[in-house]
Amino acid sequence: MKVTLHRGTFIQELQTVQRAISSKTTIPILTGVKIQLSHQGLTLTGSNADISIETFLSATNEKANMQIEQTGAIVLQARFFGEIVRRLPEETFTLEVIENNQVLITSGKASFTVNGLDADNYPHLPVVETNQQLTIPVEVLNQLISETVFAVSQHESRPILTGVHMTLKNNQLVAVATDSHRLSQRTIPLESQSDQIDIVIPGKSLTELSRSLAETDEQIDISIMENQVLFETETMKFYSRLLEGTYPDTNRLIPTSFNTEIEFSVPALLAAIERASLLSHEGRNNIVKLSITDQDVILYGNSPEVGKVEESLSYDKVSGDPLDISFNPDYMKAALRAFGDTTIAIKFISAIRPFTLEPTEGQASFIQLITPVRTN
Amino acid sequence: MKVTLHRGTFIQELQTVQRAISSKTTIPILTGVKIQLSHQGLTLTGSNADISIETFLSATNEKANMQIEQTGAIVLQARFFGEIVRRLPEETFTLEVIENNQVLITSGKASFTVNGLDADNYPHLPVVETNQQLTIPVEVLNQLISETVFAVSQHESRPILTGVHMTLKNNQLVAVATDSHRLSQRTIPLESQSDQIDIVIPGKSLTELSRSLAETDEQIDISIMENQVLFETETMKFYSRLLEGTYPDTNRLIPTSFNTEIEFSVPALLAAIERASLLSHEGRNNIVKLSITDQDVILYGNSPEVGKVEESLSYDKVSGDPLDISFNPDYMKAALRAFGDTTIAIKFISAIRPFTLEPTEGQASFIQLITPVRTN
Repeated sequence: MKVTLHRGTFIQELQTVQRAISSKTTIPILTGVKIQLSHQGLTLTGSNADISIETFLSATNEKANMQIEQTGAIVLQARFFGEIVRRLPEETFTLEVIENNQVLITSGKASFTVNGLDADNYPHLPVVETNQQLTIPVEVLNQLISETVFAVSQHESRPILTGVHMTLKNNQLVAVATDSHRLSQRTIPLESQSDQIDIVIPGKSLTELSRSLAETDEQIDISIMENQVLFETETMKFYSRLLEGTYPDTNRLIPTSFNTEIEFSVPALLAAIERASLLSHEGRNNIVKLSITDQDVILYGNSPEVGKVEESLSYDKVSGDPLDISFNPDYMKAALRAFGDTTIAIKFISAIRPFTLEPTEGQASFIQLITPVRTN
Repeated sequence: MKVTLHRGTFIQELQTVQRAISSKTTIPILTGVKIQLSHQGLTLTGSNADISIETFLSATNEKANMQIEQTGAIVLQARFFGEIVRRLPEETFTLEVIENNQVLITSGKASFTVNGLDADNYPHLPVVETNQQLTIPVEVLNQLISETVFAVSQHESRPILTGVHMTLKNNQLVAVATDSHRLSQRTIPLESQSDQIDIVIPGKSLTELSRSLAETDEQIDISIMENQVLFETETMKFYSRLLEGTYPDTNRLIPTSFNTEIEFSVPALLAAIERASLLSHEGRNNIVKLSITDQDVILYGNSPEVGKVEESLSYDKVSGDPLDISFNPDYMKAALRAFGDTTIAIKFISAIRPFTLEPTEGQASFIQLITPVRTN
């Protein structure tokens, strides 16, 4: 293998596959990046137990300015190799496999000789054989992820809850996540492109996927296999394992009738919750109290050790029964951040039943649920 | 105590004194900031075992827009109080001591009640009684610090070496730091303003001082007491304890005759050393080798576990005997960074004797020393 190419372009590709590479793996070859050169171009692969990323840099890509002298493949320790390439003195560099899997990296007057590993020993990526496929805009996928992934469980006691449940049925793609204290569900209409889909994707995989996807108006192809899912754009393949097991039936958790409703501007409510949570974080119990009457809506935080906070909230509309309800402000902050700069309706049944949050425009397509904290 | 003032201006003052406040102190009241209100203005104080910072916000400062209703003093837990003030909804806020050292913080519709501590229990700062005083531009002090402080020892085995030695004698202010592997010394001419000065200031204090000083053309007054030093600007007093003991005589360490000299552009040499140190950091021995002959100057790094690097260096001028010398690239990187974008001369005696680095213009005023590593 011998190739000369543009350093900056190569570094971008390497950064993408490095997202899948951990230095803490128990399989030594997986600390490496697999570099494969054909006459068509350069393929980089990184992988860990959960995700694998493959990028392709075409020989015809003008920015890459690739001069291919000899095809071949090698595996190089990813972090170390990346640091070398980043610090090379010239705009282009040459990568050449010499004897015994050693690699010569040259740029200007600097030359590195580093030890590589035989690419034949690198694990093979899954072969895609499925008829379960769909295509959606990258932007929509990113939105689905950012609106749900924060609500997955961080605990391994119920592994299935560490994933986002995605289903496609009756032309509706539904993504839902819950850690059993709160829930977030987004529904998007999608012309049926596949059989019925029902998978659970690890939250961590989705977070990495989202970081790897540039803000584009591209489409992304999703292929679902036995225990893997592949997300594929023009230049990148992102594989994730799927979680095994049955996701709980979350539909029955979402209430449909309410006794108190109130509408807020999200940024104003979020700022008030952030202030109140300063106190609850310092104290022993991380809760704040919302008190709703006809006259006013007041947010309270009280931690005897440090002090108390009280704030009369601005709201757009209120209706129904008066209510005092306590909740974890961190769940509320995460929920509000997922809504962004908009207006929402919060609907309550009672002080001990979960309450819902929905945008005042386009309800039903996005709903969040938070379980209150009983205080007596 | 009751005062209303501009939030942003107050936060700036608080940030400055917070540099001196640690949450890990064994004296609980020192986790707090002391707030003192007189009719002249607001004084904030923060302190830990090593440094104390006091700032003064004048009642006549227009940006502060201060309305003083009642003078007084209180101590508030600094981090927590700072977070509250940062998140308040309006541009101004009111601070009022109510009963039992409780403080009411109000802004817009938000009101916090937090527990404070009696300001009478806060330790007193040292009283300045000295005739050892000097005044220098802030800019010069910052330069002195940045050019020497990186070379102080990080180990407590010889505590005196964790400080920067400053002496004033014969109209020369000399700052020197050494960790016994390398040394950095800056000399500035200074019209004698005081008796002979000879103190050792903790490196950590100087780093914090430097961060607290804005880039200005102001002067700073330095007062030296028995075991304290006070740095004073118009709005800030910065106290540091001094290190006790005798600083070693570093003058005798600096060689005066050499057998090999070479001149480099600092940025080019730094980039090459950074590349070579990538390999030495991965390997077992953190050393690189410089090989100087009439024909060329080559930098080598070799770590059998990971690979090797070789780079032919560009230099401005070379003279004297050929030489192979090995050294820790981290010392070289720190030394080069202190020179900035300039040209330097490196002067060697032999492969086992310390070598010096000096700017090619204005030598003598700034000199660094690095001890090589014996490799056989």
